[in-house]
Amino acid sequence: MNPADFQSWAAARQTRIEAVLEQVLPLSRIAPARLHAAMRYAVLGAGKRVRPLLAFAAGELTRADPERVVIAGAAVELIHAYSLVHDDLPCMDDDVLRRGKPTCHVEYDEATALLVGDALQSVAFQLLGEYRLSDDPADQLDMIKLLATAAGSRGMAGGQAIDLESVGKKLSVPELELMHIHKTGALIRASALLGAKCGKADERALTAVDTFAKHIGLAFQVVDDVLDAEAPTATLGKTAGKDAQQNKPTYVSALGLTDSKAFAEELRQDALRALAPLGEGALRLRQLADFIVLRRF
Amino acid sequence: MNPADFQSWAAARQTRIEAVLEQVLPLSRIAPARLHAAMRYAVLGAGKRVRPLLAFAAGELTRADPERVVIAGAAVELIHAYSLVHDDLPCMDDDVLRRGKPTCHVEYDEATALLVGDALQSVAFQLLGEYRLSDDPADQLDMIKLLATAAGSRGMAGGQAIDLESVGKKLSVPELELMHIHKTGALIRASALLGAKCGKADERALTAVDTFAKHIGLAFQVVDDVLDAEAPTATLGKTAGKDAQQNKPTYVSALGLTDSKAFAEELRQDALRALAPLGEGALRLRQLADFIVLRRF
Repeated sequence: MNPADFQSWAAARQTRIEAVLEQVLPLSRIAPARLHAAMRYAVLGAGKRVRPLLAFAAGELTRADPERVVIAGAAVELIHAYSLVHDDLPCMDDDVLRRGKPTCHVEYDEATALLVGDALQSVAFQLLGEYRLSDDPADQLDMIKLLATAAGSRGMAGGQAIDLESVGKKLSVPELELMHIHKTGALIRASALLGAKCGKADERALTAVDTFAKHIGLAFQVVDDVLDAEAPTATLGKTAGKDAQQNKPTYVSALGLTDSKAFAEELRQDALRALAPLGEGALRLRQLADFIVLRRF
Repeated sequence: MNPADFQSWAAARQTRIEAVLEQVLPLSRIAPARLHAAMRYAVLGAGKRVRPLLAFAAGELTRADPERVVIAGAAVELIHAYSLVHDDLPCMDDDVLRRGKPTCHVEYDEATALLVGDALQSVAFQLLGEYRLSDDPADQLDMIKLLATAAGSRGMAGGQAIDLESVGKKLSVPELELMHIHKTGALIRASALLGAKCGKADERALTAVDTFAKHIGLAFQVVDDVLDAEAPTATLGKTAGKDAQQNKPTYVSALGLTDSKAFAEELRQDALRALAPLGEGALRLRQLADFIVLRRF
């Protein structure tokens, strides 16, 4: 594997997803202008776009049309962006810094940030209803159900609720895992599966992609916890050390730094193992596993 | 028209929509239990279900299968219920009473109420992806786009944003109308159109239903403003006199009580006129116009 090759692959797709997000979000001069400006503020010009990259990588496996995958990726990224805006609100994590900028409710106001999140979720589903993502519209309805389930109370929003209930508690490693399977894992799995479903995905490929995404989603969170404990705020683009300060259970608090890093590496190996039967088509998924686990921000 | 007949028609459909909402919302004993209990609290056991009734009435016009219409109606009602939960939050209208009960954030807490709204929006789209609503899945994708657009920043959420910007201002009647076309009108139109699209809807019927719904949506809001000024809290099930207290622009503040009532009646006549070409199939839509404009709660 050639890291430079992966970097240019990822950069090209980050540019493409940015252009699509830019295009599908209403312009700031269209009324209600303040809401639209705040929606663009919350989504554009920042973010690693890990979820769309996963969709692209899974789409390459199933020879999906990248113009379809980018819409699926944009929908997932909009759900992710909405969750960050709501998660940063005073009644949730009460954070002031995100992606190196003031959070949405700090830059605008709480009510606007609330509506930004609400409206971004709507845009995500609007895209999935509007653009053709699959040869069979019935398959596309399944994709919509998949994303809605991943975003909802048995997925991402449910993970946030478990997170709320866990503040100040010491969670066991299985309890932590359950929280993260919901909070970040569900949407990461949805990213990869939606990307794959934009192409010709047989059951064997979908199962492998799903298993890969489960492991890599958890690894992503473990690495997040390690970075929160280790990296400076300037590198992270969000407030570092926030987890410990808010007395939140993390992998670092449950396992310690050394074992957390070893666990992330173990999950990366599990993720790669799931891809073994897929051959060369899974190259980008393998490279993404490295990108996610070995990142420094 | 026989009022007793309409009342039993509406009651049967209110019972059916309640049963479906009860069934599609996750049980309170399923984790995360507090979130699921709060979602059920916010949706079940109250509400006039005006939007699902509109979907049913429009569905009768196009001979739609009521088992399809009830899913479309449930999806719209879930979007409506989420908007009420978020609208009542301290950073928005800061209200403590809704449908005769403490609002969701008072009964639970702000963070839970935020997640309740987020998750209810996801359930709405999950239903539209999961159940068969149209013979042609491509038409169903259009229905999803329609609901997402009506809920988003150019529809309901956008109306809330215009509302926020208007507090303390004196709006002209056209400005008020623009706000309400977004805030309540978009979702009411979507209700009627989705109901119609569950059946065989030709362009002529869709145009008539849409025009009807535009007028009746605005009438609904004018009547809301009149009731807020006139009715006691106990009858409304929400805090009365709130608009004047919060210095919100309303039809009553713009036109006065007498002219507001006359305007509501004018809109009802406009709505009925739109249905004229449709004959007997539009009976329930006509009765609903009366129900909405002549209601006392």
